[in-house]
Amino acid sequence: MSTRIETDSMGEIAVPQNAYWGAQTQRSFQNFKISGERFPRVFIRAYALVKKAAAQVNAELGELAKEKEKLISQASDEVIAGKFDDQFPLVVWQTGSGTQSNMNFNEVISNRAIEIAGGIIGSKKPIHPNDDVNRGQSTNDSFPTAMHVAAALAVHENFIPAIDKIIATFEAKAKEFSDIVKIGRTHLQDATPLTLGDEVSGWAMQLKMCKKAVINSMEMIYELAAGGTAVGTGLNSHKSYAKGIAKRLSEFTKIPFVTAPNKFQALAGQEALANLSGSLNTTATAFMKIANDIRWLASGPRCGIGEISIPENEPGSSIMPGKVNPTQSEAATMACCQVMGNHVAVTVASSQGNFELNVFKPVIIHNVLHSIRLLADCFIGFEEHCASGIKANKERINDLMYKSLMLVTALNTHIGYDKAASIAKTAHKNGTTLKEAAISLGYLTSEQFDEWVDPKNMLSPHGK
Amino acid sequence: MSTRIETDSMGEIAVPQNAYWGAQTQRSFQNFKISGERFPRVFIRAYALVKKAAAQVNAELGELAKEKEKLISQASDEVIAGKFDDQFPLVVWQTGSGTQSNMNFNEVISNRAIEIAGGIIGSKKPIHPNDDVNRGQSTNDSFPTAMHVAAALAVHENFIPAIDKIIATFEAKAKEFSDIVKIGRTHLQDATPLTLGDEVSGWAMQLKMCKKAVINSMEMIYELAAGGTAVGTGLNSHKSYAKGIAKRLSEFTKIPFVTAPNKFQALAGQEALANLSGSLNTTATAFMKIANDIRWLASGPRCGIGEISIPENEPGSSIMPGKVNPTQSEAATMACCQVMGNHVAVTVASSQGNFELNVFKPVIIHNVLHSIRLLADCFIGFEEHCASGIKANKERINDLMYKSLMLVTALNTHIGYDKAASIAKTAHKNGTTLKEAAISLGYLTSEQFDEWVDPKNMLSPHGK
Amino acid sequence: MSTRIETDSMGEIAVPQNAYWGAQTQRSFQNFKISGERFPRVFIRAYALVKKAAAQVNAELGELAKEKEKLISQASDEVIAGKFDDQFPLVVWQTGSGTQSNMNFNEVISNRAIEIAGGIIGSKKPIHPNDDVNRGQSTNDSFPTAMHVAAALAVHENFIPAIDKIIATFEAKAKEFSDIVKIGRTHLQDATPLTLGDEVSGWAMQLKMCKKAVINSMEMIYELAAGGTAVGTGLNSHKSYAKGIAKRLSEFTKIPFVTAPNKFQALAGQEALANLSGSLNTTATAFMKIANDIRWLASGPRCGIGEISIPENEPGSSIMPGKVNPTQSEAATMACCQVMGNHVAVTVASSQGNFELNVFKPVIIHNVLHSIRLLADCFIGFEEHCASGIKANKERINDLMYKSLMLVTALNTHIGYDKAASIAKTAHKNGTTLKEAAISLGYLTSEQFDEWVDPKNMLSPHGK
Amino acid sequence: MSTRIETDSMGEIAVPQNAYWGAQTQRSFQNFKISGERFPRVFIRAYALVKKAAAQVNAELGELAKEKEKLISQASDEVIAGKFDDQFPLVVWQTGSGTQSNMNFNEVISNRAIEIAGGIIGSKKPIHPNDDVNRGQSTNDSFPTAMHVAAALAVHENFIPAIDKIIATFEAKAKEFSDIVKIGRTHLQDATPLTLGDEVSGWAMQLKMCKKAVINSMEMIYELAAGGTAVGTGLNSHKSYAKGIAKRLSEFTKIPFVTAPNKFQALAGQEALANLSGSLNTTATAFMKIANDIRWLASGPRCGIGEISIPENEPGSSIMPGKVNPTQSEAATMACCQVMGNHVAVTVASSQGNFELNVFKPVIIHNVLHSIRLLADCFIGFEEHCASGIKANKERINDLMYKSLMLVTALNTHIGYDKAASIAKTAHKNGTTLKEAAISLGYLTSEQFDEWVDPKNMLSPHGK
Repeated sequence: MSTRIETDSMGEIAVPQNAYWGAQTQRSFQNFKISGERFPRVFIRAYALVKKAAAQVNAELGELAKEKEKLISQASDEVIAGKFDDQFPLVVWQTGSGTQSNMNFNEVISNRAIEIAGGIIGSKKPIHPNDDVNRGQSTNDSFPTAMHVAAALAVHENFIPAIDKIIATFEAKAKEFSDIVKIGRTHLQDATPLTLGDEVSGWAMQLKMCKKAVINSMEMIYELAAGGTAVGTGLNSHKSYAKGIAKRLSEFTKIPFVTAPNKFQALAGQEALANLSGSLNTTATAFMKIANDIRWLASGPRCGIGEISIPENEPGSSIMPGKVNPTQSEAATMACCQVMGNHVAVTVASSQGNFELNVFKPVIIHNVLHSIRLLADCFIGFEEHCASGIKANKERINDLMYKSLMLVTALNTHIGYDKAASIAKTAHKNGTTLKEAAISLGYLTSEQFDEWVDPKNMLSPHGK
Repeated sequence: MSTRIETDSMGEIAVPQNAYWGAQTQRSFQNFKISGERFPRVFIRAYALVKKAAAQVNAELGELAKEKEKLISQASDEVIAGKFDDQFPLVVWQTGSGTQSNMNFNEVISNRAIEIAGGIIGSKKPIHPNDDVNRGQSTNDSFPTAMHVAAALAVHENFIPAIDKIIATFEAKAKEFSDIVKIGRTHLQDATPLTLGDEVSGWAMQLKMCKKAVINSMEMIYELAAGGTAVGTGLNSHKSYAKGIAKRLSEFTKIPFVTAPNKFQALAGQEALANLSGSLNTTATAFMKIANDIRWLASGPRCGIGEISIPENEPGSSIMPGKVNPTQSEAATMACCQVMGNHVAVTVASSQGNFELNVFKPVIIHNVLHSIRLLADCFIGFEEHCASGIKANKERINDLMYKSLMLVTALNTHIGYDKAASIAKTAHKNGTTLKEAAISLGYLTSEQFDEWVDPKNMLSPHGK
Repeated sequence: MSTRIETDSMGEIAVPQNAYWGAQTQRSFQNFKISGERFPRVFIRAYALVKKAAAQVNAELGELAKEKEKLISQASDEVIAGKFDDQFPLVVWQTGSGTQSNMNFNEVISNRAIEIAGGIIGSKKPIHPNDDVNRGQSTNDSFPTAMHVAAALAVHENFIPAIDKIIATFEAKAKEFSDIVKIGRTHLQDATPLTLGDEVSGWAMQLKMCKKAVINSMEMIYELAAGGTAVGTGLNSHKSYAKGIAKRLSEFTKIPFVTAPNKFQALAGQEALANLSGSLNTTATAFMKIANDIRWLASGPRCGIGEISIPENEPGSSIMPGKVNPTQSEAATMACCQVMGNHVAVTVASSQGNFELNVFKPVIIHNVLHSIRLLADCFIGFEEHCASGIKANKERINDLMYKSLMLVTALNTHIGYDKAASIAKTAHKNGTTLKEAAISLGYLTSEQFDEWVDPKNMLSPHGK
Repeated sequence: MSTRIETDSMGEIAVPQNAYWGAQTQRSFQNFKISGERFPRVFIRAYALVKKAAAQVNAELGELAKEKEKLISQASDEVIAGKFDDQFPLVVWQTGSGTQSNMNFNEVISNRAIEIAGGIIGSKKPIHPNDDVNRGQSTNDSFPTAMHVAAALAVHENFIPAIDKIIATFEAKAKEFSDIVKIGRTHLQDATPLTLGDEVSGWAMQLKMCKKAVINSMEMIYELAAGGTAVGTGLNSHKSYAKGIAKRLSEFTKIPFVTAPNKFQALAGQEALANLSGSLNTTATAFMKIANDIRWLASGPRCGIGEISIPENEPGSSIMPGKVNPTQSEAATMACCQVMGNHVAVTVASSQGNFELNVFKPVIIHNVLHSIRLLADCFIGFEEHCASGIKANKERINDLMYKSLMLVTALNTHIGYDKAASIAKTAHKNGTTLKEAAISLGYLTSEQFDEWVDPKNMLSPHGK
């Protein structure tokens, strides 16, 4: 591979001839050969948006020549559009501030801008990676700004639409199943009846609460560190830069970013992303429960609960012919385990850092974006390949319900808990119906039983 | 120990003669000898508030005789006041619905009410534990209601005042130290200067964000399951009961409780507490960082950073005479580890449960209340024994700052990043001052250096 | 409360008149009012064993007068026996080295020794808490030594016997159920048959592997820090002290303690306890799965799987009469969640600490001992109140098995996977038996089916 | 893209014309578009080793024609060698048994074998993916077998050599620095002296203990599920298959695999990998502490501790010229956070699963292999770019040590703890040397001080 020589404050280093990146990216690339995770597309886009916004605000404030701003904006737009994704080769496991990734953006954008301007790549003229592209910035404020922008984009563009879609499907199914009375189950034991629609409505509401939790977490994500520069004081930036860049990023993304009220926190603390991760973790706990419920209700076909059927998507066994498994639930619950694990990685990382900087930023944003993607992708896939195809097995549902002993609960208000309990116990012991037990115990007549114990009347509170 | 015989639907069982609890409490007491954690005072109080509210709403709706309500209210008030704390002997590690704990409340309140009425304890007359005290309720809705009420009380009465107190102290210290210019540190390496007040203001803001996160989480905590009864349908409760009890509990506590919009979620899902736990976890990450910063700044006395002094509270060593340690930071960071661990316990528990009920409720509320208490107690103790006594070691701070090479950053806008870097590198290599290096390299004059490199001018953005 | 005045290197402080503890304990007691967890009995016992062993070794090496040793040994023996448990009032949330807890032992033992000798409590004569009881020790080596001794005692005395008991019960049940052929379930879907005994044998083996994991972890627990004193160098201890105290503690406990090969690691690292916690965490994952399997197999009574019955221990519902729940599984799975959470607290704490000392020791040993107790208590209770009373519902088991379509797997080796699959699919679609489908498809004769598809022949590999 | 039609038990499906995979892989590929993580190279290699071993054992036992075995072995060898890595397109987030990944291997190997034999890809002749390649296997036993083989390969080939390398470097550095006496630090406060070599030896020992923990965990990893087939009974496999395949895999890999003693556990439990993950977690806690120590010791250059220098690898700041940061420590500690998070994902996943199968297998092996790679890569990189280049700053070390007050500890055995404490306190208060304070207090003479307080004599126990 042919190379060219680039220099930075440490001296010379060979860089691949056709790379847009420069010396600092190259150093990190060589020094960190750990696992292989890179930052995802949305992060590249977010950081380039930050660079473009910075250039425009600096130009507006007279800190950067207009012609330089134009070149930087044009180069940034190309990065935003995805034309240079292969020019960001650094792994997550690098410096904890993300300095070399910031320099990667500075280098690629400046070199592309130089190229546009007809200059020589690597010459730093007319666009210098530090003095121009990084103007008014430190990695210490631009990197966390890009983290928040990326997380906000991912939540708004991926998470919210995906969770909305599956919520809508569960709400539609809740309506579809609103007349199907089935046995309830608590502690895995037969309980009083409800409708299948009620059950599904609970799932919809669980996810609506998770959505609310995530949205509540966004308020802090909208606060941007930009303008804090190296340690939070804003040294080397213009007084109007912080507000200006937040405004500019809001315009670019239609997301209500504001400048963080205290830049020392914004560089050194990770409360906003730790808390968003907490809300994603809440979502994982809810979705794990829902996906489990669905596979249990669909268990069988002949030796399980079997109250619902779900789409058959793949042959289920390499040895057992004809077997079909609830694979969407399996993928979803595994993803939920990962989100819980990712959250612990974020938690530990957020608790660290010293003084003016948390230096666990790459691992934090990597995990938050991973969790968002896992959940969003699961919602989309689960909705399409499972939830939308759920069918009620009415006959099975009916059979089970009428067998149940817990219909006896309806008698509490007529004959008291203690007598009702003895009816249920007698029926259980003798293997009879509740009615038979009730009459044999002399607690009520056949007519009373039929009037009082009607599952359809057990689905709501009484009175008006 | 003399006993009396009580009965429930499983038959007879001996209960200690002087116990207010009855058969079901006794069974759980005997069947669960695991570790020893019981529910704390605030939970006892919360559950008794629920019982009192239920009785009053039921009486209002004609579901319970007024005289019975009076007896139940009076007995509940005594439990609320703490007179019967020793009558709740059950451990956390019991049934996952908390059924026997609910019955413990039903039994103690009914027996105390019976006693007030002049009846015979254990006779269930005139107040029946199930038919009267538990009227309109199942454990499945009353237990999660008590969980939310307890968490809300603990947050409002303990967490918020405690975090407010330490925030106020940090804000006062930030003001006190606003003129003390010190070296910044990022990556543990010397960076550009800021004031000690700036640094402390970041801590205050970290905690303010945590407070906001916790408060945001409360919206879902205010939603109460009461009215869902056994499976969420509300069977055996009155139509107006759900809203009535939320209103009544709001009046009792001045906390804006409302009835949960979907009771199936409210019994089967644990989103609200999982998410509150997430916000407590965020708080733990922030406080861990702050407590670490403080002990590092106070490290020494002669071989560490030593920029601040903290109160000396205990002799620090059984072998090294005269040693004093940052013990408040140590207790606080250990408590933060526990909160992170508690959060994982809550997370796993919240992801479980099946169909109409999550049966991991006791472990969830145990951990959430434990985390609230740990953090609140730490804030109070840390404020009193450490934060309020922080003193700046001005001489040391000044010495370190003027030695630092990172003041060179102020030259970026005058001579560019690359030349500035070479000054810093030269000074580092030769062990000289920046000024000496700058002049020897011929990049600027002595006068320029003095004008441009002034820490006091490096504390904020430039321009207007 | 009447008090006496004690002094330490910080000056005077009032101590309760009748307390055996002294100034340093009192300071910590006053400075740390956090939550309320104290160290358990086994830790008190372990630390007193360390003090006794130290005194004896020091006497043997001529570092401590024989008469002093006798007094210290006698006082320590009383602490070991539990006579002074109320004299250890400090909470876990204190200094991270446990210095004040070490001093608490030094103070109580010296004061009790003084009392035995007829001296004046608080006079430090004839037994000085630091110079005599703490001789040759620092908290930094004696505390981690006590941690290892306590963990070893808890594992050997509680964990191992408890897990052995439940393993034995599962093994006995596996034998008891070895002839009961039942349907297997994978992915919650009907699979090929096995015996109920096979299924239970898997549970036994899961726990045997956990036991092995815990025992493997003990090797590092047996290594003791004693002899490292303040920073690992052993300053102020005798050259033969380290080996001597390990030997002495082995004699006292019959546990094969040895002196740690590198004392710098033994003070600063927490690998041994972090790893033991990992093995307890493994145990929690296994037991969670087993307890879940049991409650699912017992689900019903009429609308679940119902293949086994478990003991009915408490009425299961305050509203649903006659309901009985798998409460032992519920308590056990909640405890497993806690162990997983405790493990994260231990993990974070173990990753911290700086240079010569990890100062997160109290939270580490608190959680490890808590996890041991939770698991051991659960094993004992679960065995007694659930596992030992498991009964097979043979009729139900048989009914389900013969309905299953997965018996078709036996045909793979006769007619190939693809044809076998089409038989199962046809039977499933038409709601017929496998045999009907097989014959209708013309793949085999009725006789062939009866010969080839026999569940009893599907329980093991073929050939010899 | 041109396609061909393949069929499985669900019917026809279009597969890319040039793909070696078949219908089932294609279904999973289409149904699971979640995140993007695939199984790594070592897992592909491991699974192909299992397929080859199975074919050879089956042939040996007369269950598979020799010619078929040859074709399967040859195709497997090519997969093992990495020639078909692009033919395994399935993501981790699929069915929890890994069935479609197993079928992916069956399909690719059978199609490649068919191709070698001159047959038509997709024809299943002469090599059928289920009947031949999967012979004697179910996913349920072959997948966990591949998991164990992959984990064992990764530990032996990557983890052990990497940790050995960094241990060796620390041991060499410990020797190199064995004469450099420095101040110890406990609680971040100055303590008694030790050598820099002592300190580094503690790091080496921490990692040696981690290595031991990992090796202890391997015993259970060596136990293979193969031979359990669908539910653990071994149906459709030959009686000698289980032992045979373990033996064959041992020969292939030189790793001492054995057949699992209980196949029901081996399919349904995940104790072995959960416990290995626990040992990797222990390693992460140790390495986090070590990497932190190193960056703190190297903190500065002028305002930190500065006792050591580490290699300067990249410019440290985009805004602060000349700054250099401890980036290897930063990458390493971030990776450690991830390993802790991965471990929680493994923990939750291992606690799940029901009856005869844990269906969280892909997420478990994904995380275990990720943690192994993260740690191994970090060890290699950290050793090369940081540990091997650590230099002692002797002058700074000496300056700090002689300033310290904790040298006073040497006086304990001469004048007692209390007097020694008052010397230290006096020196601290007055800002004098210890010697000045000692003499002014009249506790000893100048000569005694010089004789007794010599750091070189404070580095070990006394006596013989």
